[in-house]
Amino acid sequence: MKKKIVIVGGVAGGATAAARLRRLSEEDEIIIIEKGEYISFANCGLPYYIGGVISSREALLIQSVEGMAKKFNLDIRNFNEVREIDRDQKKIIVRKVKTGETYEESYDKLILSPGARPIVPSLEGLTDAGNVFTLRNIPDTDRIKSWVDDKKPEYAVIVGGGFIGLEMAENLQQRGMNVSVIELGSQVMAPIDYEMASIVNRELEINGVELYLNDGVKAIKDQGRTIILQSGKELKSDITILSIGVRPENELAINAGLTLGERGGIAVNNHLQTEDPDIYAIGDVIEVKDYIQGTPAMIPLAWPANRQGRLAADHINGRKAEYKGTLGTSVAKVFELTVASTGNNEKSLKRLGVEYEALHIHPYSNASYYPGGSQLSIKMLFHPKTGEIFGAQAVGYKGVEKRIDVIATAIKGKLKVWDLADLELAYAPPYSSAKDPVNIAGYIAGNVVSGDLSLVHHHEIDEIVNNGGVLIDVREPEEREVGFISGSINIPLGELRERLKELPDEMHIYVNCQVGLRGYLAVKILTNNGIKASNLSGGYKTYALSK
Amino acid sequence: MKKKIVIVGGVAGGATAAARLRRLSEEDEIIIIEKGEYISFANCGLPYYIGGVISSREALLIQSVEGMAKKFNLDIRNFNEVREIDRDQKKIIVRKVKTGETYEESYDKLILSPGARPIVPSLEGLTDAGNVFTLRNIPDTDRIKSWVDDKKPEYAVIVGGGFIGLEMAENLQQRGMNVSVIELGSQVMAPIDYEMASIVNRELEINGVELYLNDGVKAIKDQGRTIILQSGKELKSDITILSIGVRPENELAINAGLTLGERGGIAVNNHLQTEDPDIYAIGDVIEVKDYIQGTPAMIPLAWPANRQGRLAADHINGRKAEYKGTLGTSVAKVFELTVASTGNNEKSLKRLGVEYEALHIHPYSNASYYPGGSQLSIKMLFHPKTGEIFGAQAVGYKGVEKRIDVIATAIKGKLKVWDLADLELAYAPPYSSAKDPVNIAGYIAGNVVSGDLSLVHHHEIDEIVNNGGVLIDVREPEEREVGFISGSINIPLGELRERLKELPDEMHIYVNCQVGLRGYLAVKILTNNGIKASNLSGGYKTYALSK
Repeated sequence: MKKKIVIVGGVAGGATAAARLRRLSEEDEIIIIEKGEYISFANCGLPYYIGGVISSREALLIQSVEGMAKKFNLDIRNFNEVREIDRDQKKIIVRKVKTGETYEESYDKLILSPGARPIVPSLEGLTDAGNVFTLRNIPDTDRIKSWVDDKKPEYAVIVGGGFIGLEMAENLQQRGMNVSVIELGSQVMAPIDYEMASIVNRELEINGVELYLNDGVKAIKDQGRTIILQSGKELKSDITILSIGVRPENELAINAGLTLGERGGIAVNNHLQTEDPDIYAIGDVIEVKDYIQGTPAMIPLAWPANRQGRLAADHINGRKAEYKGTLGTSVAKVFELTVASTGNNEKSLKRLGVEYEALHIHPYSNASYYPGGSQLSIKMLFHPKTGEIFGAQAVGYKGVEKRIDVIATAIKGKLKVWDLADLELAYAPPYSSAKDPVNIAGYIAGNVVSGDLSLVHHHEIDEIVNNGGVLIDVREPEEREVGFISGSINIPLGELRERLKELPDEMHIYVNCQVGLRGYLAVKILTNNGIKASNLSGGYKTYALSK
Repeated sequence: MKKKIVIVGGVAGGATAAARLRRLSEEDEIIIIEKGEYISFANCGLPYYIGGVISSREALLIQSVEGMAKKFNLDIRNFNEVREIDRDQKKIIVRKVKTGETYEESYDKLILSPGARPIVPSLEGLTDAGNVFTLRNIPDTDRIKSWVDDKKPEYAVIVGGGFIGLEMAENLQQRGMNVSVIELGSQVMAPIDYEMASIVNRELEINGVELYLNDGVKAIKDQGRTIILQSGKELKSDITILSIGVRPENELAINAGLTLGERGGIAVNNHLQTEDPDIYAIGDVIEVKDYIQGTPAMIPLAWPANRQGRLAADHINGRKAEYKGTLGTSVAKVFELTVASTGNNEKSLKRLGVEYEALHIHPYSNASYYPGGSQLSIKMLFHPKTGEIFGAQAVGYKGVEKRIDVIATAIKGKLKVWDLADLELAYAPPYSSAKDPVNIAGYIAGNVVSGDLSLVHHHEIDEIVNNGGVLIDVREPEEREVGFISGSINIPLGELRERLKELPDEMHIYVNCQVGLRGYLAVKILTNNGIKASNLSGGYKTYALSK
């Protein structure tokens, strides 16, 4: 039976749903109603077009209205805005943006894919400022790019240190500006934890970006030329980008009486249906389940939107389609650095009260003897008894997102931490080491779960030492010149066996080295000699990052 | 109870076993007996040292005898060769290589890790040639490097187009030589299939390497300055590298009466024990099980050797340790190209008579609108009914081994092909596309398993067309200028809906496009209109590669 399906919003999830719907049926009537001019554009590419990395505006327009309409036999109505849903009559009221004229359209199935819009705080002086922008779509991009091209701004202020904020910081810096980033929280890049984010801070610093953490914008003055921070600092600005987050475009759903989740996203079941089974919702506008914990989450990312678009189309066509929740796997380029993560971070596990253990490693991206490699930092969160993998974060210059992809796949495969040690990953010197960093994480976590290894953490060790705990630094004396943990006693690993008698009796010994490897060997020597010992996870390096 | 454990061979698996043994027990006596001078050197780095990519010889020596002995409290005896095992007495006879003196050593547990040696064919003229080398260890490397440094060879001949052969080809070319590669088989790089290997052929050609397939060395003349091929061709050579494969160092095991597998490797159980439970064997010398099919396999790679070394040490110490077989995941750099694979290839599935289906895709490494990306080619093998993943191969310039690592992880996680579509992998424009190539492979394979998509293959289509089959090429007419399949009819995708009536009634229609995507859309249009249709896997691109 021929169906009439109306999709509200033609970007990402909406466009994917339309294409899939057509592949499943030649006869269905498929209408995309899009408020803006463009459908299916490259959202994630917008900062790079502004920065000049992507030189062609055309490249951002993945599908034209005409091209996609023809290819998939769709009725695409851009510059049309859905104003109201009449669920009883199964029809919508649409307004033509250019003329103001309204009309009705019936539907058998409706897919809501309106996305989310940048949050604009109410700031003193904002309305008088012509140089303050948000970035969501092509017109926003055009506005920012014109401003940059025409006004040649010298000073840029980015408000918000998330993905878009840091991508814009990089791209505006590349355009020659002095860039400042203001972040209300204590760290940039919320998906990763504090000590991992500090690597990002350093990358920003290296590239001349001023970072103001724990600070926000209090007011905007001089038609936008001065940004007053809550701390009282004043920053010059020729262009300001607000990137503090997004808010789901939920008004249509609210007015239609559809239930929202606690964070304002449209509530859907695992078939992506709202409480009205004829209305689906996908993308940034919905509340999803965290894949691991099952808790509500809002994940405004491209992959989930596309996946949801596909599944909604499948379900509409009577196919088995289950959205299993979102890991929130993400990656961002911050200058030369890659920052990637999947699953839960330590902050959220702590907030949820879940029992967890964390490990930190700083392995090489490839065989250390092969040129071009570099150290990356990986943090993994897992259950210390069941070995369930909760999440991972990686930051570095090479081979970063690869390790996160592997761990994301392992999570979907319900592998336990010890299975990571058994992953047979591609090795040759230009690509990895015979023990891949993921294998190493698996070995360490497996040792923790089996009780073979006790870890102590960067945020615990100061208090332990201050309360009389014994911390042995097993690095060579010259390595301590870069810094050491106050109160630590230096016994190089090679001397440990002979100097065991120097250790106080009956005390738990804490050990650190530079990155955790020699510390582990030291802990094995100690425990095999009947001495209780714990290794500082990630060694002095992680400790130093957390300061 | 204190144990005495003797390890025969101190490279890769042997060194790993020793380190792990010490971590598990401080008191055990652990002896490494190594015939050569060096232990634990960087085998996989040797070609790159010869090529000058790795500039320091020191860098190849991962652990010195003294350093490792001290760090792990080991008794390491280099220049000592085990000549005989007396299983009844549990002792070995050792010969000091430098003096010829022999002595006995008892053991509680013995670990055999002697490796494999390059196969040297008996060739006419070989003994008279001073410029023919094999590459296994540091002395081999020193010999080759001195020859290159001193004699400044102009012409190099590599016999064998496997990993070492192609790595040597690259490195000798980098040293300025004219390099020829002779391969007896019809393709280089045995782990991947013919049409995938043809991408490697082109890379060799681009870099000026002459490739002689289906040809071998018949004789060596002029003290090695002329290589006569079986085809009758004669090649000039100033240096010849024999890299036709390796043979397990199984003599010690044979003489001790230990059982070998059918391919000459030592037979072991899943704890890595030979038929003598006090004798373990690991690394290139053993026969392993193919992880997927359970069939015997010889996989002389670093990862399995290290993993096995660890597991043997665990088992000796009464721990649960099970080696589950080898996927044979591998990667090689061939000039700028990356060639990676995991699991079974089509050749071996065919040989084993396993029911399988293959797919080919040619996606971009990252968002096509973001600079620096490039097309890669992926082939995946799977069961067409159960959806089990058998293996995958990828060849390209960027993001290649990442996709193989993800699929290798998916295999270990027992994910099915459709689960690959559900993998939430890290996406941002510099790294991937919103649908990662692995997702795309999962969608296609899932469609095959569900019966939504029928594929036809590059090796089938000519015969189909020759026998009157109808092949529609849905590319634009100008795209056919690069080539097309003889007998194909051009109906661009955008015109297909209107031109359906041109198609012959009641016939199965075959479709091709450039890489397979538009072909898939065309097949959906056809089948949704009641016409049976199949898509050419990998499109014209895969077809052209196979020619």
